[in-house]
Amino acid sequence: MNDLILRAARGEEVERVPVWLMRQAGRILPEYRAVRAKAKGFIDFVKTPEMAAEVTIQPVDILGVDAAIIFSDILVIPEAMGLPYQMIESKGPWFEKTVQIEKDIDDLHVADGNELQYVLDAIKIAKKDLNNRVPLIGFCGAPWTLFAYMIEGSGSKTFSKAKKFLYTHPALAHKLLEKITLSSINYLKAQVAAGADMLQIFDSWAGVLGKEQYNEFSLKYISMICDAVHGLVPVTVFAKDAHFAVMDIAKTKCNTIGLDWTMSPHACRAIVGKDKTLQGNADPCMLYADESVIEAEAKKMIQAFGKQRYIANLGHGLYPDTDFKKVKFFVDCIKGL
Amino acid sequence: MNDLILRAARGEEVERVPVWLMRQAGRILPEYRAVRAKAKGFIDFVKTPEMAAEVTIQPVDILGVDAAIIFSDILVIPEAMGLPYQMIESKGPWFEKTVQIEKDIDDLHVADGNELQYVLDAIKIAKKDLNNRVPLIGFCGAPWTLFAYMIEGSGSKTFSKAKKFLYTHPALAHKLLEKITLSSINYLKAQVAAGADMLQIFDSWAGVLGKEQYNEFSLKYISMICDAVHGLVPVTVFAKDAHFAVMDIAKTKCNTIGLDWTMSPHACRAIVGKDKTLQGNADPCMLYADESVIEAEAKKMIQAFGKQRYIANLGHGLYPDTDFKKVKFFVDCIKGL
Repeated sequence: MNDLILRAARGEEVERVPVWLMRQAGRILPEYRAVRAKAKGFIDFVKTPEMAAEVTIQPVDILGVDAAIIFSDILVIPEAMGLPYQMIESKGPWFEKTVQIEKDIDDLHVADGNELQYVLDAIKIAKKDLNNRVPLIGFCGAPWTLFAYMIEGSGSKTFSKAKKFLYTHPALAHKLLEKITLSSINYLKAQVAAGADMLQIFDSWAGVLGKEQYNEFSLKYISMICDAVHGLVPVTVFAKDAHFAVMDIAKTKCNTIGLDWTMSPHACRAIVGKDKTLQGNADPCMLYADESVIEAEAKKMIQAFGKQRYIANLGHGLYPDTDFKKVKFFVDCIKGL
Repeated sequence: MNDLILRAARGEEVERVPVWLMRQAGRILPEYRAVRAKAKGFIDFVKTPEMAAEVTIQPVDILGVDAAIIFSDILVIPEAMGLPYQMIESKGPWFEKTVQIEKDIDDLHVADGNELQYVLDAIKIAKKDLNNRVPLIGFCGAPWTLFAYMIEGSGSKTFSKAKKFLYTHPALAHKLLEKITLSSINYLKAQVAAGADMLQIFDSWAGVLGKEQYNEFSLKYISMICDAVHGLVPVTVFAKDAHFAVMDIAKTKCNTIGLDWTMSPHACRAIVGKDKTLQGNADPCMLYADESVIEAEAKKMIQAFGKQRYIANLGHGLYPDTDFKKVKFFVDCIKGL
């Protein structure tokens, strides 16, 4: 197996920088859109293991990336806990029921992984079809990010309802965050048992919190997850827009820290020390540029991060209107450096 | 006149910390909503000097803040340049025409301030009615933020169309940014001539850019504006989410740097040195909390920033569903410290 990414995550020497891209299994690929068109909707798509496994593998074949990431959604955990959601075209997720009072939290159950058998099945199929070409990444949303959706009921620029809950009901917030955390631990362990070679925790809404609230309501639970899966497979924490949290994320038992494009590679390396791998951090919009710009940015990125203890990626997911040929060009640039 | 805020901005000694709040003239006040109900729509409201002046003064009377800020909108500049917009309820701004090609930029004209006579008239009325109680702040959007709306045509989570334009048409981007900058300089000078005692430049979408693009496409133009109005009245630069830019903003001729709640007061003071005033940075969601929390947070904030070279404010605009009594409590806390 091409295990470059696992070795990079564990701090072992690599011959070249491994590369994968957040949202690489997605709308940029015509082959993805063809499979997607066969599903009744996004959630049906996610819940059909054969389809999920098929699009998981597409970027390995088409883009030549050094890892696959199981095609799924972070909101499968709230759903498994008892809060179903819909994915509304060009609007995003929408929950008909949200968490408002203690009873709403009591009504939720800790997911044990069985509710998410469809993800585990997708992992098993993807592993088989990957046939040890590259590692398969499993993932979950960070408890804070899932909490934010479960209170808010949809996406939001400010997540002010979720943050209001932290300020007005801190004890209840912790109660819900604990339930989400236990569910996430069960889920990640089940993903590893099903075949995931690596895990990533996505804290997509980290950046709406200040440092103190972040430590209390988000990082505490991310750290619990890292503790629980430590030693199983390498773990990456990606906290979008949480520039203030890098030093504290480095204190968790994660192997790799994902960075967005606002972060300085040199400054982050100085902050986290030598014992963590860094991942990131190209601006997804850079892939709209000409190939000469893409090549120059890829070079600059690798010069800044260095070739060891580094996994090349974007600083956010690929935007759907990106030309996949440019994405492939970017991947090839990284692999040629 | 209570000139605490002007003295704080100029680095002169103050007896107590001055305080005002972004979006203090707004939906949190029942008195604002009463005036707003009389207008045909948001833009009609902004364009009616008597109404704009009335709501400008309300927070001085009701909340007891140390400054008024003229009630207006950053998008009056694109409109004055030739791109009219609508404000769609609960959706935000929407431009029927956007900038896509060079001709679109050539068709825009540099605003000379006359197109914005209604803002200047509002300033004159507000100044008269304020009767020298507190200073009046004028403002504009940063060129990058206005550019982002002019390309994108509406709000966006990623502003990926505007960023794509930077990557694919950098020369055209500079051409448009220059036109916006010249318009903004004319506009701010006209605001000072009409009576504004202080100016703030809002770079609301600073945080979607990385450091290099920020310096090239945003800060360069903010700096030109600071140069052009330097010496007239104190100037504040507020670049939301631009944690990476604090050191470079400190190199401009601004007096004050606005910070959001993700920024560390101590770290920012260390970065900017002693010659700039800092403004901010409470989380607007904190005002949802109990008074005991609000009081503790106000104290913590002032202890962290110190009482000199500091203007108390939020790290973003007030959220519309905030209880104005809690806002007043927060203002009173600051004034009592």
